[in-house]
Amino acid sequence: MTQTHPADPSTPQPPPKLTNNPQALKTFIDQFDTFLFDCDGVLWSGPQLLPNVRETLLYLHSLNKTLLFVTNNSTKSRASYLDKFTSLSIAPSIPITTSQIFSSSYSAALYISRILRLPSSKRVYILGESGIEEELTLAGISHFGGSDPTENRPLSDADLETFGPDPTVGAVLCGLDRNLNYRKLSKAFHYLTHPDTLFLATNIDSTFPSHGKLFPGAGTTAAPLVTMLGGREPTSFGKPSLAMMDAIEAGTGGFERSRACMVGDRLNTDIKFGVEAGLGGTLAVLTGVVKEEEVVRGEGGVWAGAYVETLGDLLKAREAEE
Amino acid sequence: MTQTHPADPSTPQPPPKLTNNPQALKTFIDQFDTFLFDCDGVLWSGPQLLPNVRETLLYLHSLNKTLLFVTNNSTKSRASYLDKFTSLSIAPSIPITTSQIFSSSYSAALYISRILRLPSSKRVYILGESGIEEELTLAGISHFGGSDPTENRPLSDADLETFGPDPTVGAVLCGLDRNLNYRKLSKAFHYLTHPDTLFLATNIDSTFPSHGKLFPGAGTTAAPLVTMLGGREPTSFGKPSLAMMDAIEAGTGGFERSRACMVGDRLNTDIKFGVEAGLGGTLAVLTGVVKEEEVVRGEGGVWAGAYVETLGDLLKAREAEE
Repeated sequence: MTQTHPADPSTPQPPPKLTNNPQALKTFIDQFDTFLFDCDGVLWSGPQLLPNVRETLLYLHSLNKTLLFVTNNSTKSRASYLDKFTSLSIAPSIPITTSQIFSSSYSAALYISRILRLPSSKRVYILGESGIEEELTLAGISHFGGSDPTENRPLSDADLETFGPDPTVGAVLCGLDRNLNYRKLSKAFHYLTHPDTLFLATNIDSTFPSHGKLFPGAGTTAAPLVTMLGGREPTSFGKPSLAMMDAIEAGTGGFERSRACMVGDRLNTDIKFGVEAGLGGTLAVLTGVVKEEEVVRGEGGVWAGAYVETLGDLLKAREAEE
Repeated sequence: MTQTHPADPSTPQPPPKLTNNPQALKTFIDQFDTFLFDCDGVLWSGPQLLPNVRETLLYLHSLNKTLLFVTNNSTKSRASYLDKFTSLSIAPSIPITTSQIFSSSYSAALYISRILRLPSSKRVYILGESGIEEELTLAGISHFGGSDPTENRPLSDADLETFGPDPTVGAVLCGLDRNLNYRKLSKAFHYLTHPDTLFLATNIDSTFPSHGKLFPGAGTTAAPLVTMLGGREPTSFGKPSLAMMDAIEAGTGGFERSRACMVGDRLNTDIKFGVEAGLGGTLAVLTGVVKEEEVVRGEGGVWAGAYVETLGDLLKAREAEE
């Protein structure tokens, strides 16, 4: 007698590829009321909107789906993100407001002000760009460093003498910093030698997709400090940290997680975040960091619920409509 | 009957502290014909010579000891080191030549030219300073990057488009780079995505002692790339790599290792190097990176043979002479 062996439930199956399958796409979309989108590598790559993204978002909006944008990119504030949606003609065709946009800078600012409750006498030293500064300012947190041009001065021997721990520095916050330099790393390290100074990161993405390529991500800002500190890692607020989900729930007033889907181009941040937050589904796209073979083999033990080549593939669900 | 328990030979004993013990210092010195000195944190800290260093080196020279200088600092060439010995009035009181000076840049250059035998059509991209450039030039190795001022231009979108793998780049070589920036890291990462481009580092010291403090070391130049490459580590030529001992033997014509002592301020580079190279002894000093409690507990499983507070303590051996 031939016996059929049921699949071992402990071995997840490769996620289905929904590209070119209108019925499967429609069934997938119908499961969800809320879509959370990563931005870089999903909606756009650097200055370029990816194919059919505008039409796809309009289609989902026409289906009354709630659209949320959840990015680990700390270089822009939520207000700057809204400007980008407008400049790419996504808004105002779709009426997006900052209340739908969540960045790792915002998540970090919320955590520092509401959870850490950093005393007003303490300052945050920023290794990062203006997006972090704007969000910390909005949250009433004192900060310095960041985009301050004096941080880019050549380093003198006299400067080296002045670096040291400082009890007024409550935290060092690392994000993507395309002006990272030896002065900032030296200062940050000396601050972190103070036992009360916290080591924080907006996110620890190793790479950052732009112009169809990968560039150094926020994780590379923290990496030299982790090396100097003998392996001490920063507390991080971007995906996959659930601090990001706390920020989203605080900002939206909550939503039914079982009817929500996270869409992203990274398994170890986006998809892991969706899985660990208990969302109803996750969808990987191949226009950013992750490669198809990594999605299929569940790289790093992270399994997407399904995947498509590009976000624009979702448009084909229309062909399955009556 | 009382039984004496011999010390468990698998548990090394804390090394003896020789400071203020003239007889023990004399006995220690008498064991060796050759002393290998680390420089930063042992002889000097930044621009400052440490106390009694000149007198100690003169004393050892008067005892006919061979003095070698073995530094992981890649920012200076051996010729520049000789200038520093002269400017600090160590030479010419002691007749030091470049043949006694070994740097991680020199070790890297020797390895690339003699062991790797990089074809003359291949270039090395340097993330580092002029010491590396000078040693690679002396070894006849084509190189670019390094101190080239065009590497410090602001990064434009047009630049991002140009970055990519390049089959003419045989290796990326990382050293201490106090002008490290996002452009260089981005370029280096893209070169390293070519399967034939090697990932090399002069050394991977996490910190660099200067001005009596610690600053980012060469390991922090490689760290962002290691993060981006998912944990791929560079091949390193500084201490504790035995490539450095190969360079020293090539330069000196060899010496009796059992009659040689490595003196340094780091357990995980200097002392480990002395132990793994099979030298007769190692001596830790407390004027640089390592703390006394770390020497005493054999931090990281590395045990110095003995230790002193400062190199100048060795002078007290004179008091034990007849």
